[in-house]
Amino acid sequence: MGQYFAAVDIGATKTTVSVSSSRGILARVYQLTRKSGDPGTVPRQVDFLIGAACAQARVEKPQIRAVGISTASPFETTDEALSLIAPNICGALGEKRKEIGNDWRQVPLERDLRGKYPRLRIANDCISAAVAERSFGAGLGEDNLLYVTWSTGIGAGAFVDGHLLTGKNGNALHLGHIVMNYHRGDEPVCGCGGRAHLEALVAGPAIGREYGAEPQEVFQRCRRGEKRAGTLVQRVAAIMATGLYSAVALLDSRLIILGGSVSKNWDILEPLVTDRFYREFPVLTREVVFKHSELDQYLGDMAGLSLVMPDDWIADWQKRKPWRQAPETTVLEPELA
Amino acid sequence: MGQYFAAVDIGATKTTVSVSSSRGILARVYQLTRKSGDPGTVPRQVDFLIGAACAQARVEKPQIRAVGISTASPFETTDEALSLIAPNICGALGEKRKEIGNDWRQVPLERDLRGKYPRLRIANDCISAAVAERSFGAGLGEDNLLYVTWSTGIGAGAFVDGHLLTGKNGNALHLGHIVMNYHRGDEPVCGCGGRAHLEALVAGPAIGREYGAEPQEVFQRCRRGEKRAGTLVQRVAAIMATGLYSAVALLDSRLIILGGSVSKNWDILEPLVTDRFYREFPVLTREVVFKHSELDQYLGDMAGLSLVMPDDWIADWQKRKPWRQAPETTVLEPELA
Repeated sequence: MGQYFAAVDIGATKTTVSVSSSRGILARVYQLTRKSGDPGTVPRQVDFLIGAACAQARVEKPQIRAVGISTASPFETTDEALSLIAPNICGALGEKRKEIGNDWRQVPLERDLRGKYPRLRIANDCISAAVAERSFGAGLGEDNLLYVTWSTGIGAGAFVDGHLLTGKNGNALHLGHIVMNYHRGDEPVCGCGGRAHLEALVAGPAIGREYGAEPQEVFQRCRRGEKRAGTLVQRVAAIMATGLYSAVALLDSRLIILGGSVSKNWDILEPLVTDRFYREFPVLTREVVFKHSELDQYLGDMAGLSLVMPDDWIADWQKRKPWRQAPETTVLEPELA
Repeated sequence: MGQYFAAVDIGATKTTVSVSSSRGILARVYQLTRKSGDPGTVPRQVDFLIGAACAQARVEKPQIRAVGISTASPFETTDEALSLIAPNICGALGEKRKEIGNDWRQVPLERDLRGKYPRLRIANDCISAAVAERSFGAGLGEDNLLYVTWSTGIGAGAFVDGHLLTGKNGNALHLGHIVMNYHRGDEPVCGCGGRAHLEALVAGPAIGREYGAEPQEVFQRCRRGEKRAGTLVQRVAAIMATGLYSAVALLDSRLIILGGSVSKNWDILEPLVTDRFYREFPVLTREVVFKHSELDQYLGDMAGLSLVMPDDWIADWQKRKPWRQAPETTVLEPELA
């Protein structure tokens, strides 16, 4: 009898579940993440989608040995179980209550799913992406690495001395929320309410807002040599470099991996980011190497799976890279949940 | 036959060595840290002082089971051995070459001492202070703690998920060198050459320079209600709070322990620091607790010793706190080295 593992990716927009055997990813299903009903809705949806992915893979649900969940955060710990809290998926207390459309104070993800599977491991999407990049991507075997998502938000995950940092509530590496200017002054306000946070200065929406166009449009104009776009990209790259340097000053990382939609312009960003980065304290910066994410569009499957994959699969998957031959995703209608 | 351990504290000014048995600290000697001669001078001095402390404790040097070295850093790794590099003790390439008085590029601390003792463990003074505070001080048993020295410089050490962060070269938690204002502008320049680093803004010398008096004098005037001193202390506390918040955003710490000469004014600083700290992202800050260092003046002995102390001594030392009954320090003349 085979061993099967489920990988769950809970995003603010959609939730994807795949089921894998040692040979590769067998099936993948997704739905829009359900944000109405009671706070147990999301765990029930996850459980339903695992069942649906199993059915599609012709695997019995009890054959699932472990479930790895990579999810939008932040977390809170209640009775030793991780819950999701506002913002992103829970509306209560948050600024985005209307936009999210519920008043959940927390989603009891771990409490509701624990016990249904032999093993359950939950981490935020950037922390689990760091695990995936270290096992299968640009960070192969590196004990001191920092993975950074540069996208609609800024998040990160890190290994230090080979140890994955999670923190008291699984909220380590909230890189987007470090303060970049202690004066604060009239710096932009972050989604969390803070001022001059890295995310408020350099994430996709900040770039778009400052220019008055979609971020990708800004990069296209920068490529075409438009001066205003070029100046903005330069400014944003320098701020990101400063944030990355501060993280390295705390973590003494050897490798920084950039992923996410904004970082797809790494060809333009790299020289700008590194130029500013290496000008800081040479003792701390000179041995640091930058790479672009290798897993990138495969992180949805590989982040959750990497959290629970058996050690004896790893070498084989590194060699065969079966995630590249994953099946198409089946979209399940919401009412099936 | 007893088990004996040596604790070494290498500072920019003096180097102290103590020898302990399971009962307590038996002897302690110190000399001014030697900064002339060849780069092997410091390791030789350490070795000499261990011998001198042993003699005073009536212990044979071969009875030393392990040596824990808590030292001024930063480090570089050469052939898998930690070396000290500029600034602080090595003058080469540094701004402070004249002040330090040598042109050493590195001090091969680990290479020269490894093999002379059954076990050798080296960490910077703040990282090893974090170990000591967690074993014997304000951080007893806390798996997610940040220890911060607020003194002539700013440094830190941290545990995340019970793991001590060291990093690729043992340079983790260089908190004094995070950038507090990405504009940089005319912010003060740090000893490392960077601008707007936390250390350049809030360490003792920065406070003294801004006011035009010794830092302790500034706090005394603040206590007497002098407005200018009060405003400066308030400003410095708010900047420190911002730096501590950024560290917590990356490490998800539960406990922050403050030590060092400036933090001796914790009664004044605490309300100012915490007021600013808790105004940042509540999800990340609300469970964080602040404490003042408990080991404080005992860190010189306990930091190095904590790096190598056998696990089965710990509970007994926690109960008896024998470091409080340590003998007087014997000052050894430099020429004896």
